[in-house]
Amino acid sequence: MKAYVDCYPCFLRQALEAARMATDDEGIHRRVLQHVAALIAEFPPEATPVEMGEGIHRAVREMSASPDPYREVKRESNDLALSLYPELREMVKGSPDPLLTAIKIAAAGNVADFGANPGFDLERSVREALAHDLVGSDFPLFRSRLREARRILYVGDNAGEIVFDKILVEEMVGRGAEVTFVVRGGPVLNDATSEDARYVGMDEFAEVITSGTLSPGTALRNADPAFLDRFNGADLVLAKGQGNYEGLSDEPGPLFFLLTVKCAVVARDLGVRIGERVLRAQRDRGRGGGGRRSGSE
Amino acid sequence: MKAYVDCYPCFLRQALEAARMATDDEGIHRRVLQHVAALIAEFPPEATPVEMGEGIHRAVREMSASPDPYREVKRESNDLALSLYPELREMVKGSPDPLLTAIKIAAAGNVADFGANPGFDLERSVREALAHDLVGSDFPLFRSRLREARRILYVGDNAGEIVFDKILVEEMVGRGAEVTFVVRGGPVLNDATSEDARYVGMDEFAEVITSGTLSPGTALRNADPAFLDRFNGADLVLAKGQGNYEGLSDEPGPLFFLLTVKCAVVARDLGVRIGERVLRAQRDRGRGGGGRRSGSE
Repeated sequence: MKAYVDCYPCFLRQALEAARMATDDEGIHRRVLQHVAALIAEFPPEATPVEMGEGIHRAVREMSASPDPYREVKRESNDLALSLYPELREMVKGSPDPLLTAIKIAAAGNVADFGANPGFDLERSVREALAHDLVGSDFPLFRSRLREARRILYVGDNAGEIVFDKILVEEMVGRGAEVTFVVRGGPVLNDATSEDARYVGMDEFAEVITSGTLSPGTALRNADPAFLDRFNGADLVLAKGQGNYEGLSDEPGPLFFLLTVKCAVVARDLGVRIGERVLRAQRDRGRGGGGRRSGSE
Repeated sequence: MKAYVDCYPCFLRQALEAARMATDDEGIHRRVLQHVAALIAEFPPEATPVEMGEGIHRAVREMSASPDPYREVKRESNDLALSLYPELREMVKGSPDPLLTAIKIAAAGNVADFGANPGFDLERSVREALAHDLVGSDFPLFRSRLREARRILYVGDNAGEIVFDKILVEEMVGRGAEVTFVVRGGPVLNDATSEDARYVGMDEFAEVITSGTLSPGTALRNADPAFLDRFNGADLVLAKGQGNYEGLSDEPGPLFFLLTVKCAVVARDLGVRIGERVLRAQRDRGRGGGGRRSGSE
């Protein structure tokens, strides 16, 4: 998905949020924002939000001399999610449709403010996700593709959320699939890294690799060759979250997106509403591109 | 009030809103935003939001070849407000405290989306303003200063709102004051111009002059000498709205601000909450500057 002009104000908003996470120095906040403004001024129309995200968070890390501003937030998110893990596992095991329940739980984990917002009620978010259908009608297709798939590439998104992903990965592995779980190449925003994967025990069920980039989303253009091999060789790719949707929505492949929609731009691109949880199969590239379609199905 | 970093994302948001008002051409929207981003990248830390506003709206006018993008919105706002005018006048005449009622009505007129938002209920906004006290305790001081004042400079803000201002101007003139009403030097945003002042009949009660600038707010630095003479010679200056607060909040003088607070940055600067209607006397410049103080009084 290319960046819309509506993304431009949001780039500065994200930069400010990240700069404040990294340091209390208001002079640095200003310098980060002015640097990002200069990036926006030269931003190519065909570029994606993921590319800008990489520039934003690089600027924050370098200008604040803070290599991992969200480290504490990520740890808290993982701990919070791990505290729910046994209960979530039981929910899946006791469910009449464990795969669907696991997918809804994984979607519920894709929420903003996971650990950072003290008022956020994760358990309530899970209950809501379980009580509502996923938007779209792609679950039957996903189930049937999963039945035939052996090699699954699961592209993760955030720390904390990765515990919820582990639930779905276990469910897939229990059905005979081999799962490779993808994390970012290093600290960017609150995105899950190899350290988070180890911390939550993802490696018990899946091989963990990195995309090789420090983007808050995955794009093929600058990804590691090893990641590209896995992407091209996978029978099924499941990409979590907005960042991965933004980076991969124009790619071909046996690709599904699972996300909670957090912004008006992605909502419009997907044809859904903000806050909805979506499982969306990649569309035939010949039919218009960008995954854009009406939300009525 | 200098610009805070929180203003930077908002500059791009304002630019996008204005660009969309001026044209449907998405290429122009993008060029306007990238131009404004370049301005932000070079924005001096001591500059005010009013200065950026001037640059934003100049870029929109020039790049869209639309000299007055809000012309239609301003006309609709004026017509809507004029339709309420007789009723508002009666409210003031029938009130036990006509001056206070007129001030509350003028504050109620200082609202966003006056004519542009079809869902906006202006009459309800007036009822709410009349039902609530103005924030702060500066009305008694204003009443007493007004009693002694002969030459009043009333710095207007938006079209539509100017009809509400006319109610207060009439009330002041009825108490023996001479009022000079200030409009912008030309079309910028939905701000009132000489054309609007004539359209609503402000010139029946006040001499109308312009600030001489195309900023969406008034700052002394680049104002007309004729305006500066009036500003310096006034016994009392009443400045309406956020733009005039942003431009004049650090100036000395027998200065009062009357506004509905619309953004978090101005709310913080004033020590009040978004949506509150404020009448605030300029503070002694020796006591900290910027008009900043707690909202508890």
